[in-house]
Amino acid sequence: MRMVDVIEKKRDGHALSAEEIEFFVQGYSKGDIPDYQASALAMTIFFQDMNDEERGELTRQMVLSGQEIDLSEIDGIKVDKHSTGGVGDTTTLVLAPLVASVGVPVAKMSGRGLGHTGGTLDKLESFEGFNIELDQQSFIDCVNRDKVAVIGQSGDLTPADKKLYALRDVTATVNSIPLIASSIMSKKIASGAERIVLDVKVGKGAFMKDIESASELAKAMVSIGQHIGRTTEAVISDMNQPLGYAIGNALEVKEAIDTLTGNGPEDLTELVLELGSRMVVLGEKASTIEEAREMLIEAIESKKALETFKTFIKNQGGNPSQVDNPTTLPTAQYQIDVPAESSGYITELIANELGVASMHLGAGRATKDDVIDLAVGIVLHKKIGDQVEAGESIATIHANQQDVEAVKEKVLNAVKINDERIEYPLIHKVITGKDVTQ
Amino acid sequence: MRMVDVIEKKRDGHALSAEEIEFFVQGYSKGDIPDYQASALAMTIFFQDMNDEERGELTRQMVLSGQEIDLSEIDGIKVDKHSTGGVGDTTTLVLAPLVASVGVPVAKMSGRGLGHTGGTLDKLESFEGFNIELDQQSFIDCVNRDKVAVIGQSGDLTPADKKLYALRDVTATVNSIPLIASSIMSKKIASGAERIVLDVKVGKGAFMKDIESASELAKAMVSIGQHIGRTTEAVISDMNQPLGYAIGNALEVKEAIDTLTGNGPEDLTELVLELGSRMVVLGEKASTIEEAREMLIEAIESKKALETFKTFIKNQGGNPSQVDNPTTLPTAQYQIDVPAESSGYITELIANELGVASMHLGAGRATKDDVIDLAVGIVLHKKIGDQVEAGESIATIHANQQDVEAVKEKVLNAVKINDERIEYPLIHKVITGKDVTQ
Repeated sequence: MRMVDVIEKKRDGHALSAEEIEFFVQGYSKGDIPDYQASALAMTIFFQDMNDEERGELTRQMVLSGQEIDLSEIDGIKVDKHSTGGVGDTTTLVLAPLVASVGVPVAKMSGRGLGHTGGTLDKLESFEGFNIELDQQSFIDCVNRDKVAVIGQSGDLTPADKKLYALRDVTATVNSIPLIASSIMSKKIASGAERIVLDVKVGKGAFMKDIESASELAKAMVSIGQHIGRTTEAVISDMNQPLGYAIGNALEVKEAIDTLTGNGPEDLTELVLELGSRMVVLGEKASTIEEAREMLIEAIESKKALETFKTFIKNQGGNPSQVDNPTTLPTAQYQIDVPAESSGYITELIANELGVASMHLGAGRATKDDVIDLAVGIVLHKKIGDQVEAGESIATIHANQQDVEAVKEKVLNAVKINDERIEYPLIHKVITGKDVTQ
Repeated sequence: MRMVDVIEKKRDGHALSAEEIEFFVQGYSKGDIPDYQASALAMTIFFQDMNDEERGELTRQMVLSGQEIDLSEIDGIKVDKHSTGGVGDTTTLVLAPLVASVGVPVAKMSGRGLGHTGGTLDKLESFEGFNIELDQQSFIDCVNRDKVAVIGQSGDLTPADKKLYALRDVTATVNSIPLIASSIMSKKIASGAERIVLDVKVGKGAFMKDIESASELAKAMVSIGQHIGRTTEAVISDMNQPLGYAIGNALEVKEAIDTLTGNGPEDLTELVLELGSRMVVLGEKASTIEEAREMLIEAIESKKALETFKTFIKNQGGNPSQVDNPTTLPTAQYQIDVPAESSGYITELIANELGVASMHLGAGRATKDDVIDLAVGIVLHKKIGDQVEAGESIATIHANQQDVEAVKEKVLNAVKINDERIEYPLIHKVITGKDVTQ
């Protein structure tokens, strides 16, 4: 088989066979196929797309290119959740202990990543002593005993995807549904997920700007799940504004604790219940979404979810008393309010701009060697649709520097105030197996 | 400027600016832009095409990437001819002395190249002592004195195109009109051509299989010529069968001599007159095609063309008496006839297959280190439309080996005999400046 023939076949609009996809993925992963042929194929895929079988095979081969995490020693069905990115996304921090508290095992490998704020691992390190490096046996024991553990990703998962992603990034081939979908799904599958709930963000702060393309991505991933035999559901949720109020690491941890105690932001709570109840049903701890939702609400009200969170923090060497006293979490030296410049309704809260403002404070990483300041960030006081008076604080900047004028300006630039009230629904759509034809 | 943004712009269907094209071509040529970005851009060009301005700029930048041959010391307008490939193409061998004999200066740099038979240089080396390496001054003096010289390509012409062509070959991006057109035109322009006549082959034995795509390529090149200020005309000629009867180096030289004496194959003679008269008009040695054609016919009849050929061979160290005695040119040891297997009309003579058969005899090069056998090849006795009786010889194999069964089989496979007579016109179309909108 010659790579140039594989490229030509796809270029001319034909579907690639399983053997051809294997030839490409494994050959590229091993270095037998050069970057210039991989980028040419990626560009043909951008233009010619892939059908469901091709997408499934691409994903399968990405998984086979590296290690697969074996979670078979963990009792119960391993359900994982993935969000396609966004700003101020605290869902994992809440969901992990919440669904664990009703019996769904959460054995999560998480990353640090680059972005406006740290990854889940960084956020958890807001707790004194929290250790993200458990050995494999302790990790499994924790999940079997207390249903939840979160560790750093180890092992060489989906190396073909890593290599291809780096190439796509510099060849204008990131924005391709089959390539995005297979990249996300292969990582989840290699991490041992048996069933998957996806949170596909849509809107001004998300990678997918409109519901149509978000639906297309969601369907692609649900269909890949079907193809590979890992039931997958996708919730398309709004990212026209940050989720919740907090943007920043310890600030988001505090918000997560609030949510686990029933005092969280309405949107974050609702999204967590939507995603969580689907995880509970897929984990076969409830038979309907409604029943699952009741279970989760009960777990919050009874403090069972909060207790699970504390046990989880303790199991991994963290100080659980900080859950009860969130003021002991990293706290910034300065709190500076940002007053509204006019009166009216909030009509825009550009999530990316707020994210960039947080990064300026030190909340995120631009390169992987950057050190994160866990304490800093932004806490909003208003969301889209809220009324505001000129001079009223719309957000508080939490900073470890006194001069935050530039950050303030960024926050003000991210906020639009208008006379007419607008609102976005939180959940736009849900895609399950029955929405994709096989 | 970032290359990824240039790729994305073209990917999204926008025209690239002159600066962006310069950035790409010069950056790639210098090695600042890696192969994987160049192949991604080539694939976007395959899908999104380029407009006339982009094609012109791409060509201009290819030329600027390397040396440009300075022919300004040569008197008169330098008109060059280029054929887009084919089998048994002897036109250059005939055209060079023919148009030179009526005063059009022919200062040709030629290549050896890979293919079924050698390049023009190889063919000329059929003459004892012929030297393709003249120094620049001798070359210019020859052309000024006797109007014709052909030398090996020296200097680093269009290195960006060479590099990109090698990349396109392995990334399934050869087959793109803007890329083919700019590649051909940049080479001609860098070689010093002021005006250009193109012979675009179409049919089963050519790169362009149908008249539509051949016209598109021809228009693209004529338009690039306009953009760069080098008047270009294109003749779309038939390559459903080899041109003339001979395939092989010395065999084609003999056919060229026949044609220069007025005894050549009808199709080769006609194409040479068509291309040649356009060269004479572009070279301003005649004011109409008809007048030019008369001049060329007269040059053949008066033996002026043949004399020019002899002078040309002599100027470059060759033995001109071989022109008068073509039997002294390299001759193969064995002549084996290929009898027709049935009776009827010849309906197919697949040029490529006959070319491959000639290569098997040693007439061509598969890799650049292969040594060519100048004597061997195939001489057809029939062309499409000719009647043939079973057992009658349709071709003679000229070989330096006794066992030619495999070659015979290939020749027979290339020939289809049928009851119904078909015919192809030789000249399908002519494209000049007025056929392209600017």
